[in-house]
Amino acid sequence: MGRRFRLTVAYDGSGFHGFAEHEGVRTVMGDLRAAMERVLQVPMPLVGAGRTDAGVHAWGQVVSGDVPDGMDDAGLADLERRLNKMLGPEIAVRDGAFTADPEFSARFSATYRHYRYLVHNAPVHHPLLARTAWHIRQPLALWAMNLACDPIIGEHDFSTFCRRPKPVEGQQPVSLVRRIISAEWFEVPSQVPGDLPGLLRFEIRATAFCHQMVRSLVGTMVDVGLGRLHAGEMRGMLLRRDRAAAGQVAPPHGLMLWEVGYSDADGGPSR
Amino acid sequence: MGRRFRLTVAYDGSGFHGFAEHEGVRTVMGDLRAAMERVLQVPMPLVGAGRTDAGVHAWGQVVSGDVPDGMDDAGLADLERRLNKMLGPEIAVRDGAFTADPEFSARFSATYRHYRYLVHNAPVHHPLLARTAWHIRQPLALWAMNLACDPIIGEHDFSTFCRRPKPVEGQQPVSLVRRIISAEWFEVPSQVPGDLPGLLRFEIRATAFCHQMVRSLVGTMVDVGLGRLHAGEMRGMLLRRDRAAAGQVAPPHGLMLWEVGYSDADGGPSR
Repeated sequence: MGRRFRLTVAYDGSGFHGFAEHEGVRTVMGDLRAAMERVLQVPMPLVGAGRTDAGVHAWGQVVSGDVPDGMDDAGLADLERRLNKMLGPEIAVRDGAFTADPEFSARFSATYRHYRYLVHNAPVHHPLLARTAWHIRQPLALWAMNLACDPIIGEHDFSTFCRRPKPVEGQQPVSLVRRIISAEWFEVPSQVPGDLPGLLRFEIRATAFCHQMVRSLVGTMVDVGLGRLHAGEMRGMLLRRDRAAAGQVAPPHGLMLWEVGYSDADGGPSR
Repeated sequence: MGRRFRLTVAYDGSGFHGFAEHEGVRTVMGDLRAAMERVLQVPMPLVGAGRTDAGVHAWGQVVSGDVPDGMDDAGLADLERRLNKMLGPEIAVRDGAFTADPEFSARFSATYRHYRYLVHNAPVHHPLLARTAWHIRQPLALWAMNLACDPIIGEHDFSTFCRRPKPVEGQQPVSLVRRIISAEWFEVPSQVPGDLPGLLRFEIRATAFCHQMVRSLVGTMVDVGLGRLHAGEMRGMLLRRDRAAAGQVAPPHGLMLWEVGYSDADGGPSR
């Protein structure tokens, strides 16, 4: 047993097969763990706050684990610096801190997850947004997409908007009930006139998400914005608890895990 | 002879060996010309406004040329659509128009070029800015960098801040006198609090630039911002007309050709 720490990690998910480790493919957690083990020369089991899919980015992913006994704040700061040198441009350790609570878990102590989704709504795509925004050529009705947000706020069974995990023999099926705290679309203001018209951002916070939930919600709302579905149908889709009722699934590259929330006792606010 | 057109082209320069065509390597102009020739089935000599280096991006590069006689506005719009389908995510044709002036040249009719340079000034790099911003870890003094802009405004010999072209036997050496219209550094405001602190943008407009001029000016100004050079030395460096007097050269990936200006008679304002 050593001292429990938490790290805030940002990454460009384009080149990774997702966050969580899988045998034989490059993952963010795999790279991070390998780098930590190279520095510390001990096995480093890590826990992450959100299992982002292949191609999904993060600004505020959180990882927890234990460093060997005797490492102090200066040692952790040094570890951060060395990790940032080793990890290359796709991953950045934004900050690290020891937690007050030895039971702290990046996953189980989280009180909310905040995701962002970028849509670029313009007749012609933008080459520098190709990795981070979903390009939609036809004009989207933003007001309708915001109307479609209302019915999903609160606690619901999100079976319609999730990939149901494979049932495990002899176990209860996993609950897909989740609580959405807020969900909103807005137009990103241009910094200079004409800078980048048509950039739309979806912000969603929930206590937790199930698999592909944000992308399924975004895809369905984009269908609403295109007039293929009506905002008024959203509640009915939710109540059907049937994946076939949902609209399209948005591509992963527009999605980013923006922030994970914890109570103060779980290691202090993220910088 | 056909009808003269101009296209506004955006690109992610990361995967290209620059804009201008070179035998045996992938360039933006090469890809664009090949796509146009595949559609139109005739040789398509093209002229570009600015020769951006390998890794440099563009939002408002301008290209001119002639399409075969008989092509009308609808034909040009159709060509644009087909090019955008063929060119893939790294290049976008933002708009196309025929020019009133049959002598119009994307290069020689330009009245100014506007470049932007992005610097990310923060202790830790941002994975999603790795292709578009120069990461500087140590704090930069923005006021000093703006002081360093003053002496370069106006018409000067920029030999200190350019790569001098190889002299051609029997020809006069090329003039490196250029006129800078405006040059300014500013902090990009965050869209939400804490969104992305430390993003700095340099905006520079000139009638024309010589080779590596913006990157050499940016690198030298960053040296000023770091305290390695003083803003007051800028004028002296300029007057020495000696490349050895300049500071470092900024990397290409922070640079973007933002806009090229033309008088209205040369095809109307860029959309």
